Amino acid sequence: MSVAAILGGGVIGGGWAARFLLMGWDVRVFDPDPEAERKIGEVLDNARRALPSLSDRAMPAEGALSFHSDLGDAVGPADWIQESVPERLEIKHKVFAEVQMACRADAVIGSSTSGFKPSELQQGAARPGQIVVAHPFNPVYLLPLIELVPSAANDAALIARAKDTLTSIGCFPLHVRKEIDAHIADRFLEAVWREALWLVKDGVATTEEIDEAIRMGFGLRWAQMGLFETYRIAGGEAGMAHFIAQFGPCLQWPWTKLMDVPELTDELIDQIASQSNAQSGQHSIRELERIRDTNLVAMMRALKAQDWGAGAVLNRAEPPAPEVGDISQPLVTVERAVPLDWTDYNGHMNEARYLQAFGDATDRFMEIVGCDADYIASGGSYFTAETHIRHLDEVHAGARIRVETQVLLGEGKKMHLFHRMFEAERELATGEHMLIHVSLETRRASVPSDAIATRLSEIAAAHAALPVPDGAGAAVGKR
Amino acid sequence: MSVAAILGGGVIGGGWAARFLLMGWDVRVFDPDPEAERKIGEVLDNARRALPSLSDRAMPAEGALSFHSDLGDAVGPADWIQESVPERLEIKHKVFAEVQMACRADAVIGSSTSGFKPSELQQGAARPGQIVVAHPFNPVYLLPLIELVPSAANDAALIARAKDTLTSIGCFPLHVRKEIDAHIADRFLEAVWREALWLVKDGVATTEEIDEAIRMGFGLRWAQMGLFETYRIAGGEAGMAHFIAQFGPCLQWPWTKLMDVPELTDELIDQIASQSNAQSGQHSIRELERIRDTNLVAMMRALKAQDWGAGAVLNRAEPPAPEVGDISQPLVTVERAVPLDWTDYNGHMNEARYLQAFGDATDRFMEIVGCDADYIASGGSYFTAETHIRHLDEVHAGARIRVETQVLLGEGKKMHLFHRMFEAERELATGEHMLIHVSLETRRASVPSDAIATRLSEIAAAHAALPVPDGAGAAVGKR
Repeated sequence: MSVAAILGGGVIGGGWAARFLLMGWDVRVFDPDPEAERKIGEVLDNARRALPSLSDRAMPAEGALSFHSDLGDAVGPADWIQESVPERLEIKHKVFAEVQMACRADAVIGSSTSGFKPSELQQGAARPGQIVVAHPFNPVYLLPLIELVPSAANDAALIARAKDTLTSIGCFPLHVRKEIDAHIADRFLEAVWREALWLVKDGVATTEEIDEAIRMGFGLRWAQMGLFETYRIAGGEAGMAHFIAQFGPCLQWPWTKLMDVPELTDELIDQIASQSNAQSGQHSIRELERIRDTNLVAMMRALKAQDWGAGAVLNRAEPPAPEVGDISQPLVTVERAVPLDWTDYNGHMNEARYLQAFGDATDRFMEIVGCDADYIASGGSYFTAETHIRHLDEVHAGARIRVETQVLLGEGKKMHLFHRMFEAERELATGEHMLIHVSLETRRASVPSDAIATRLSEIAAAHAALPVPDGAGAAVGKR
Repeated sequence: MSVAAILGGGVIGGGWAARFLLMGWDVRVFDPDPEAERKIGEVLDNARRALPSLSDRAMPAEGALSFHSDLGDAVGPADWIQESVPERLEIKHKVFAEVQMACRADAVIGSSTSGFKPSELQQGAARPGQIVVAHPFNPVYLLPLIELVPSAANDAALIARAKDTLTSIGCFPLHVRKEIDAHIADRFLEAVWREALWLVKDGVATTEEIDEAIRMGFGLRWAQMGLFETYRIAGGEAGMAHFIAQFGPCLQWPWTKLMDVPELTDELIDQIASQSNAQSGQHSIRELERIRDTNLVAMMRALKAQDWGAGAVLNRAEPPAPEVGDISQPLVTVERAVPLDWTDYNGHMNEARYLQAFGDATDRFMEIVGCDADYIASGGSYFTAETHIRHLDEVHAGARIRVETQVLLGEGKKMHLFHRMFEAERELATGEHMLIHVSLETRRASVPSDAIATRLSEIAAAHAALPVPDGAGAAVGKR
């Protein structure tokens, strides 16, 4: 069993505690704040809700969490000691001195500092080589980035051990090879914060408008490719050097009005271009464009399901559902393209997405008979009790699919539907579903409203004249 | 039918053309570049692949695309004219003069400029009020943000019409109320670009390390909440003013070494705090934390499915699959938490995700009998032909679920599996599946390898002694 000691239990210390604990480590907390236990408990609640969602496997059993009033007691048995105390150098020095009197010589002492360089933290330490910057990002239990910043006093073995530990708890340790004020990421955050303060102060934009300017555009790009890979694509097949040559002059104009910038010498351009080749050169620009687009589609669809940010924009722009046509024929309940994120690496629609499309068809049919959002909010709905799917043919991303829905039975609490999925006239799959009307309060079967019963039986009666579809009533492996 | 004229057919002009066209507009392109048709064709290929994926409904039929050698001919019938020519003011002025000789007086003339203010673009124009900045972000056919920047010369009706048009083609028009060099978003991009150039030049970080510092951390945050809402959460229940008070001093230290910053007067702090209240005050900090976490989980899982960026980190950190235990009993093939993005707004697992879990169980069982990634790469696999699901009970996000798999038949080309899903001892659903071994080359049924046939029949023989599970062989609505 591995042991972590957490010094300072605010949002950052609590986030570290949660990540270690949920990854199976024992966690020993030292924080003189009498509210520390409550505060860490709140972060832990959030982490327990979210972190296990990142895995498609079972998480290890949680470690043991303990609180210690004595710092030496907290750090004594620890493999990893994480300092997240206030950003004042004299406080940090005092904490490190106490830690090193009680901790194991082979423990890693990580500091969450966002501002101090490791050589500053190490000043006056008994064993400077044991102390390293391990700077996380909030929420610490979800975001993978840890800036791991050593100084010349840290030997390679300690850095390797620190990387291994961070990787084992799901982090991405970024080894910052040259210590610098504010490391790497916070320099960007500060640059943006400065610009944002000016924009607010000058009345150009509100905080909300600034956030929209970020999350509706480049924020989405940066979640998956960062700055240089994005600009590499903008440069086209000619690459980064071309991008800088093309956009340099027009970008330089506002730059020179705003701030001091490095001169774009041939040497700097070559340096960037060759680093970019090393980073992304294994993909052609066309491949990078498609990777970027698939990532953007997948993330925007993820936000769409949450009805948030760029995803809320997609929901507001959604075209209307297919119209209800002649009810004597099967009703068209789904018409759509197979999206990029519904397919496997070969571009075929995944098994579960057939049921998603049939589920959408059922939802649309429910709407048609009056079981819409308002009705559901009033406390009634249909739940699927049983499903039978026959996979008849494959379909690829981008294909336009259509689901036609026939009612086999619609009376009392029961609604028995048969969906057929097509690409043009090619039949892809069938889905047979038994739904039961339920009270959302009792979660038990109940009769639907009269309006729904009437509309459903109307369509059921019209569909009774249709032939029983091929495959209806079949069991797996039997005809 | 609405008509757009696209002046300049590079990546940006091509992106505009693609968005209009796929949203059903006729698009008329003017670009003297002899390569324009090929270049726009390449952007269109990308857009046709990706844009329809954003919708869960059928897109409108594409409009007609035409190329025009005469600018006046291109813009004559247009409702919207989008200028994306090089960033030189004298070129833009010349283009606007020619446009206004031929276009309708009620058309909107949008400029894709990232640097010029609208009042600069409007200088010397016949009808200045017709010209407005509409600044997009690459890829234009996916990212919703358009910075819509008018000057005092644009009347409210034109601005409203421009917003309506942009919204109707799926964009998010951000009305920039005060014109300024580089608008809003590009000021941030430039600030970050400046810092990045210094970091590369000073040898602190490579382009790849900088991209990792962005996409593994704050890039993910910014894709969904931007800057101020993120910091509002960091400030806790006390809000933005508290955040600035708490982080001001330590952040100010590197700031003052780096650049000129606005003084954090009480007035500026109040302004930010009250704007942040207006923006996010309808949610408590706890709610915002949970919204943020669910968004992050959903986006990181989206990237996980693409094995990219933060998602690739998750895949590398994935714990091993459940071990194969006693083969005389049903095998545990799935053990996991129900993730936040598998549930509806009430927190219940969605219908289609039951099949996803059963599909994962099938994949794991295939691995156990030797139909693993290497075998599949060699050209054989099992495809699901038929599925029968019984939904027995509900389950919530966060619940730990387990799938146990029993072989009903495993001989020749057939593999007949019965999965039972549990939360602890509570049975949630059953999934009965008939799979057929196929040749991935012919996509037709074929016999599996001897090794797979042997292992499968071994488990099938052991499972033959088990009772036939409840619900096996059932058809929908029959027992």
